[in-house]
Amino acid sequence: MSSLLVDDIGELVTNDLGGEGGPLGIRRDVALLVEDGRVAWVGPARDAPAADRRLDARGAAVLPGFVDSHAHLVFAGDRAAEFAARMAGQPYTGGGIRTTVGATRAANDDELRATVRRLRDEALRQGTTTIEIKSGYGLTVADEARSLRIAAEVSEETTFLGAHVVPAEYADRPDDYVGLVCGPMLAAAAPHARWVDVFCERGAFDADHTRAILTCGQAAGLGVRVHANQLGPGPGVRLGVELGAASVDHCTHLTDADVDALASTRVGDTSDGGGHTATVATLLPGAEFSTRSPYPDARRLLDAGVTVALATDCNPGSSYTSSMPFCVALAVREMRMTPAEAVWAATAGGARALRRDDVGVLRPGARADLVILDAPSHLHLAYRPGVPLIRQVLRNGVPQ
Amino acid sequence: MSSLLVDDIGELVTNDLGGEGGPLGIRRDVALLVEDGRVAWVGPARDAPAADRRLDARGAAVLPGFVDSHAHLVFAGDRAAEFAARMAGQPYTGGGIRTTVGATRAANDDELRATVRRLRDEALRQGTTTIEIKSGYGLTVADEARSLRIAAEVSEETTFLGAHVVPAEYADRPDDYVGLVCGPMLAAAAPHARWVDVFCERGAFDADHTRAILTCGQAAGLGVRVHANQLGPGPGVRLGVELGAASVDHCTHLTDADVDALASTRVGDTSDGGGHTATVATLLPGAEFSTRSPYPDARRLLDAGVTVALATDCNPGSSYTSSMPFCVALAVREMRMTPAEAVWAATAGGARALRRDDVGVLRPGARADLVILDAPSHLHLAYRPGVPLIRQVLRNGVPQ
Ligand SMILES: [Zn+2]
Ligand SMILES: [Zn+2]
Repeated sequence: MSSLLVDDIGELVTNDLGGEGGPLGIRRDVALLVEDGRVAWVGPARDAPAADRRLDARGAAVLPGFVDSHAHLVFAGDRAAEFAARMAGQPYTGGGIRTTVGATRAANDDELRATVRRLRDEALRQGTTTIEIKSGYGLTVADEARSLRIAAEVSEETTFLGAHVVPAEYADRPDDYVGLVCGPMLAAAAPHARWVDVFCERGAFDADHTRAILTCGQAAGLGVRVHANQLGPGPGVRLGVELGAASVDHCTHLTDADVDALASTRVGDTSDGGGHTATVATLLPGAEFSTRSPYPDARRLLDAGVTVALATDCNPGSSYTSSMPFCVALAVREMRMTPAEAVWAATAGGARALRRDDVGVLRPGARADLVILDAPSHLHLAYRPGVPLIRQVLRNGVPQ
Repeated sequence: MSSLLVDDIGELVTNDLGGEGGPLGIRRDVALLVEDGRVAWVGPARDAPAADRRLDARGAAVLPGFVDSHAHLVFAGDRAAEFAARMAGQPYTGGGIRTTVGATRAANDDELRATVRRLRDEALRQGTTTIEIKSGYGLTVADEARSLRIAAEVSEETTFLGAHVVPAEYADRPDDYVGLVCGPMLAAAAPHARWVDVFCERGAFDADHTRAILTCGQAAGLGVRVHANQLGPGPGVRLGVELGAASVDHCTHLTDADVDALASTRVGDTSDGGGHTATVATLLPGAEFSTRSPYPDARRLLDAGVTVALATDCNPGSSYTSSMPFCVALAVREMRMTPAEAVWAATAGGARALRRDDVGVLRPGARADLVILDAPSHLHLAYRPGVPLIRQVLRNGVPQ
């Protein structure tokens, strides 16, 4: 068991709210000891214990690795032409998501595996050390199962999204497709998945279908998350709360009742800022950026006491970014989050959305997943938009 | 004289409008030969001449290096706290630009040099192979001269911006400051500068002062550019046109008369799309992003036939990004430019704004400044916002 001391940390974002340091639990001029892939000690540099190796942060800011709790990485092909047409305000009849379903079904396992790993590695270089990966471009029993099997090779956080869209061959009998999803597809997917998710939206799955699928997913031992209220108001958020979802994602169009429902899930002591809502609102501003849509109102959620996470929604149709720093910058510019709130949401918030307490935080016992910035402060992630500021990434204490 | 063949280029953006390939002069499945730092040949891969070395683009897109025609890199300190306060909607009385002037004057040459080189290198890694660098944080004869001397160590495109703001010690006698700028400051600066620039804005320099400074700069042999119409309507754009400016920069608040004045500078044959306006409108969306301001209307300028460039405005106060890909993505999302228009503006447009015909284009005789993307198409710069997509940069034919 070898140890590594990360030394000369100018600013350490711990997200550990036990002490001082504001909402990010910031500590200055400290060192951090890694043992066996975990954080073993954090303290003033002068008190640092001996270690086998030393990594000099040279006064930079160090953060927990980003936790991207919403990504669709198992697919084939790209939709750049569709994107360009949309941006030019031109109609596009190329087929949208069904284009990707067709390409994904036609791809062999190695092609899908290569794409998943390329995007996972791209995200890792940008500081993402935990990434949730959804299925949802297979939409047959075999293609959903293999999508999740391939996702599970690179992440513990895999989500069965057989209910992404009703595939063309079931267009006129959606009830039958829901039966397939709840029956053989779930049975084949569940061994490779931790979560179940449904795209609850007009044109995709309505409240009854969503409830049926999430309930049978729960019965199969999966945790619940929902694509909710992205394109317009709808039942997704309240359904998620009712079923105890870890996260409702998008939340672009919320009524007061939706916000109240989320706030009502608040648990824990809030006096030290440590409380949170059992159901997190995960905002995905990359999707609004790439579809030129109005952004969700993060301020309203935060002011109501709702726990907010930021994630990329990385997918080839509506948000082909893998960059959590970009989402942090957008959240500050467009959603009135402070830089501190946005950084928390991209780290600890993502961990909450995945019901994890071992990532998104840097305190003894947590996984030694961390990023060293090319900057003296976490503020630079929003202050220097678009600039690749990730100097070094450690995952399980191992420099990548 | 060694030669290098860049082979297996899936998509080559030439910006060479002589042939087919749309506004970007796109050619597919080609190779490009570099000799003596220049492009020597472009053609089908199967016809490629022999070369000493070979660089395999592996089917990726290759573009001219970005030409960032507006950057303020000679400064000391940062203003992250001011940025965070502004984003939180809090008042900030830290001093703004004068904070940077104080820190810059207090810094020694090596400190300024280190910052310039760090930012130049950061920009180069993101594909910027030509970067204009302004003075403007010294505001004394000695500090402006040394700022330009240090800038000229790394770029041919240096701009004297003694008229950035009236420094505190001249606050109640701006005429005296203009006299200093036109007299001893210009004399000390001109040997190290190619351009003269003025921040023509309410609270900075009015029309008379701007005209006086630009005219004396011209008399000293410098080309003209202007910071114009950023914070509100004003005389800057029309003054720039009147004085034959290569570029008027920002252009956020334009009247119809401003647009007409720019359009009236149109020269060259427009039938093949090759014409341009002698005065370019350089748009700086990073500034609007980081100050949460409305974006300039690029569509209006393009539809009027005005040549548009994109640049970063990299500076520690209002736009601390060095990322041209980020500016391309913003231009498409926020300014209704097509991806092709934005890529052109970030390459050939920047070259026009600097009156250069040897960069921003890939045809025989041009400098072999180019970027290889981690993507099959230039579209991905907007389609994949925030993702570091620059796989390799060549400057003067030399891999960086
Ligand atoms: Zn999604
Ligand atoms: Zn400027």
